[in-house]
Amino acid sequence: GLGRFGVLYVDNAATETTLESRFRLVVTATAESDNGLSFGAQIRYQSNEHRSSYTGGGAGFNTPRFWVSTQGFTVSVGQVLGAIENMPGMYTGSVGLTGLGYANVVYNFAADAYTSGGAGAQGLDVLWSSGNWGVHFSYSWTGQGNTQTDDRVAAHVSYSMGNWNFALGGQDSNIAGDTSWAATVGGTWGNFDGTLQYADNDGNAKWGIAGNYQAGASTFVRGYINTDDAINDENYGLGFQHRMGGGTFLEGGIASLAGNTRADLGLRFSF
Amino acid sequence: GLGRFGVLYVDNAATETTLESRFRLVVTATAESDNGLSFGAQIRYQSNEHRSSYTGGGAGFNTPRFWVSTQGFTVSVGQVLGAIENMPGMYTGSVGLTGLGYANVVYNFAADAYTSGGAGAQGLDVLWSSGNWGVHFSYSWTGQGNTQTDDRVAAHVSYSMGNWNFALGGQDSNIAGDTSWAATVGGTWGNFDGTLQYADNDGNAKWGIAGNYQAGASTFVRGYINTDDAINDENYGLGFQHRMGGGTFLEGGIASLAGNTRADLGLRFSF
Amino acid sequence: GLGRFGVLYVDNAATETTLESRFRLVVTATAESDNGLSFGAQIRYQSNEHRSSYTGGGAGFNTPRFWVSTQGFTVSVGQVLGAIENMPGMYTGSVGLTGLGYANVVYNFAADAYTSGGAGAQGLDVLWSSGNWGVHFSYSWTGQGNTQTDDRVAAHVSYSMGNWNFALGGQDSNIAGDTSWAATVGGTWGNFDGTLQYADNDGNAKWGIAGNYQAGASTFVRGYINTDDAINDENYGLGFQHRMGGGTFLEGGIASLAGNTRADLGLRFSF
Repeated sequence: GLGRFGVLYVDNAATETTLESRFRLVVTATAESDNGLSFGAQIRYQSNEHRSSYTGGGAGFNTPRFWVSTQGFTVSVGQVLGAIENMPGMYTGSVGLTGLGYANVVYNFAADAYTSGGAGAQGLDVLWSSGNWGVHFSYSWTGQGNTQTDDRVAAHVSYSMGNWNFALGGQDSNIAGDTSWAATVGGTWGNFDGTLQYADNDGNAKWGIAGNYQAGASTFVRGYINTDDAINDENYGLGFQHRMGGGTFLEGGIASLAGNTRADLGLRFSF
Repeated sequence: GLGRFGVLYVDNAATETTLESRFRLVVTATAESDNGLSFGAQIRYQSNEHRSSYTGGGAGFNTPRFWVSTQGFTVSVGQVLGAIENMPGMYTGSVGLTGLGYANVVYNFAADAYTSGGAGAQGLDVLWSSGNWGVHFSYSWTGQGNTQTDDRVAAHVSYSMGNWNFALGGQDSNIAGDTSWAATVGGTWGNFDGTLQYADNDGNAKWGIAGNYQAGASTFVRGYINTDDAINDENYGLGFQHRMGGGTFLEGGIASLAGNTRADLGLRFSF
Repeated sequence: GLGRFGVLYVDNAATETTLESRFRLVVTATAESDNGLSFGAQIRYQSNEHRSSYTGGGAGFNTPRFWVSTQGFTVSVGQVLGAIENMPGMYTGSVGLTGLGYANVVYNFAADAYTSGGAGAQGLDVLWSSGNWGVHFSYSWTGQGNTQTDDRVAAHVSYSMGNWNFALGGQDSNIAGDTSWAATVGGTWGNFDGTLQYADNDGNAKWGIAGNYQAGASTFVRGYINTDDAINDENYGLGFQHRMGGGTFLEGGIASLAGNTRADLGLRFSF
């Protein structure tokens, strides 16, 4: 799990500066059959700033995910991971303690995505990896407790070659605004890694570049800039992470989402 | 705890075929006094298909149960276990991944029963076992957070002799439909064990036979057939369990509940 | 965590005698940075008699608290601990299994206080201790998810000298009824320890004396008596605790709160 706390500033919000905190407890259960099948199940409890799990408190355990894996092949049932969400390089450029709105993510969350803080979508994922190749297929459909108005079928293929990574994903869905396809190209050069990100979100292109730079023994700088036809505007952000060892971090960042400024600063630790 | 997922078919249901899943996390806390009293408390988190514990999500921790035991004698306070529910042989013949409606259980859940998925009843259990004998007394009463319209007092006595088991239980309650008394007789012969089950549910007899057969090194076949005066009809079911080791199982079954067909198939694991 | 169960009597309550139980599960997560900063986060699940965390069930996890400490200095963010609540000697004289209404606590909970059974207040605590001195500062403010009508700033200083302990606390708040200041003086003499407690709650003085006496190898007697201008009446209570080893206890007590009698008896264990 993780704990984080700090201060968040959002320009023009009702309260611009707020105490920011998150507690996330990950409960993972596993078993292995005699023939080598790995079984697993996971639920996550998440409480954001001042949320309890008492009725109306706003915190809770998310919907479970179950899986069986063997030799690089995984079938997952329950809350969908999402093939577009999990493309390599999709989250490159996430800045600050909180992600500051995650405007760096070019598919704009217009596809199935796993969430610790809610229900997500119920369905299936099939994942396969072998050598330099990876394949991820995901499927959620109407009914089954899902409130979506159409089925979502998505897949991505990824390939790595030397210090380059390529991923291409597509989605079949008639939900308004949903991502049609997305692509990422990433590379690593010494202390720097960067990724070109592109998504076609129901006809609107969003594309940009994001990168990480290791500025010192334990200090990292991250940034992104992109343009989104859906809002006819740009987003950009810059953040740093200082690793204090033992899974503890000092993080902060500043971002501009279509001209609106956000900033944060705080401590985070993993457990 | 346990995880299970698969497919469930219920004839004539609004959606006949559904993704079935359950995540159950059992939290047990214990302590022991210097004079040998064992203290315990247990809560269980349960989430069925696509349920979260967020407000309105439908999953959660059940009501706690507390106990003190010493030398075969246990006093339990909080959520009631139920003396009729816990008669030996009452659940023989449970089929499939999900129990397929548990029509094999002849007391028709018309008595206090422990549940992981809700509140159950609040009260007391007293259990005692010695040699071949077992005694279980349970008591829940109106008020105390219980919504029931009358007190429920129940008890059973069990006795084992060679490869035979006998149990007799009775309940005092004026709640409409509640079980008056029940009896089970079970025996084991090599790879087969079977149980005769009888219950008088407020004047309606439900009785039948259920059994398990070990068909191979790790494969079990289970079945039951019974008749219930309350519905003037029969129930029967047949299921299999394949044990894959490490607490992992492949399970499935088919049952007819008063002529309505149910079937399931899936994977289950314990942790 | 803890489990407790027993019987509670409250004179003139709708149901005077009730089954009493509480299950509390404490989840604490920690990490340590290379430079010696200790990070921590804690949530607590609490279920009182027959409460579940299902929607409307009334049990749940409280709001999280996060902290960073180093060398006697702690900054805490999230649910406020409360400087008045945590004055040394404030809880001396708590009687019975349940506290029987905690009328021994002279500040009448008219300040920020940490709770396992609800939301509490969101804000900050700063704690510092060195040698015989201790300082605690707490702050919660309007907005931030707090429903309070004014900011609460509180602090206490404590000092120990030989077998004497002194604490003085004050609070700045315009919330009606809130405590202005409080003081405790405690001492230890052999098997007995006692504390004088005083609080000025928005102009109403509440003051009294409370103590513990070790009556045998594992038996303790506790009591208090105080007078409260706010109700123009007295409260007093007497309780015992028998330690059975391994973190298990038999506890009971009787108290008079402004003339109304309460009594309880039961078992408690820590885990």
